[in-house]
Amino acid sequence: MGRSRLSSVIIDCQTNDLDRAAEFWAKALNRRASKPADPADQNYRELETPPGEVMVAVQQVSHQSRVHIDIEADDVEAEVARLEKLGAKRIQFIKRWWVMEAPTGQRFCVVRAKPASAASS
Amino acid sequence: MGRSRLSSVIIDCQTNDLDRAAEFWAKALNRRASKPADPADQNYRELETPPGEVMVAVQQVSHQSRVHIDIEADDVEAEVARLEKLGAKRIQFIKRWWVMEAPTGQRFCVVRAKPASAASS
Repeated sequence: MGRSRLSSVIIDCQTNDLDRAAEFWAKALNRRASKPADPADQNYRELETPPGEVMVAVQQVSHQSRVHIDIEADDVEAEVARLEKLGAKRIQFIKRWWVMEAPTGQRFCVVRAKPASAASS
Repeated sequence: MGRSRLSSVIIDCQTNDLDRAAEFWAKALNRRASKPADPADQNYRELETPPGEVMVAVQQVSHQSRVHIDIEADDVEAEVARLEKLGAKRIQFIKRWWVMEAPTGQRFCVVRAKPASAASS
């Protein structure tokens, strides 16, 4: 059976100024914001992760501002199938992850665990 | 200056069946749900926190389902004042915590750090 866990908190911001949004959240959470290494992810700002705390990213979105969680899994498809059996629904596959909706209405994502992260979970 | 950090992820569920909502999230996140010790907090179900991961609670709410974060501080009033200077607004004081709204629109709470938590931060 695959491993999975809550890996990240994503702060979705409906904004035209992602750096300003990231600056607020960075200062609010006492973390530094940085641009992602991957040029394809320029609608994200990662906040540094203090030891023992959860990863946080600020994302520019077109929908209403909200907060969502990411679940990381070493086998995304198996995890999505497991969550479907629990009552979640597939909404959309984007790049490398599935957007799902919980029976209680919240959207969340299932992402592939990074090798180091999977090894330590 | 006071210390503060992201302490918890609260999964707000607009539901008439909190135990069922908590059961979904517990299974989804591979954590066990438990009722809070304080009888005044019966609209919460706490999920066990694996080592090194963030605390998660499922809350029954009357507003639309969403996810919010809690920031814990050893001095709540000082933290709220700090966040106001960053652009956040006070919305409502409830029991022991402040509900605030970020400039990017998300609601979040500022709660008092538990002694053990404050000592380790």
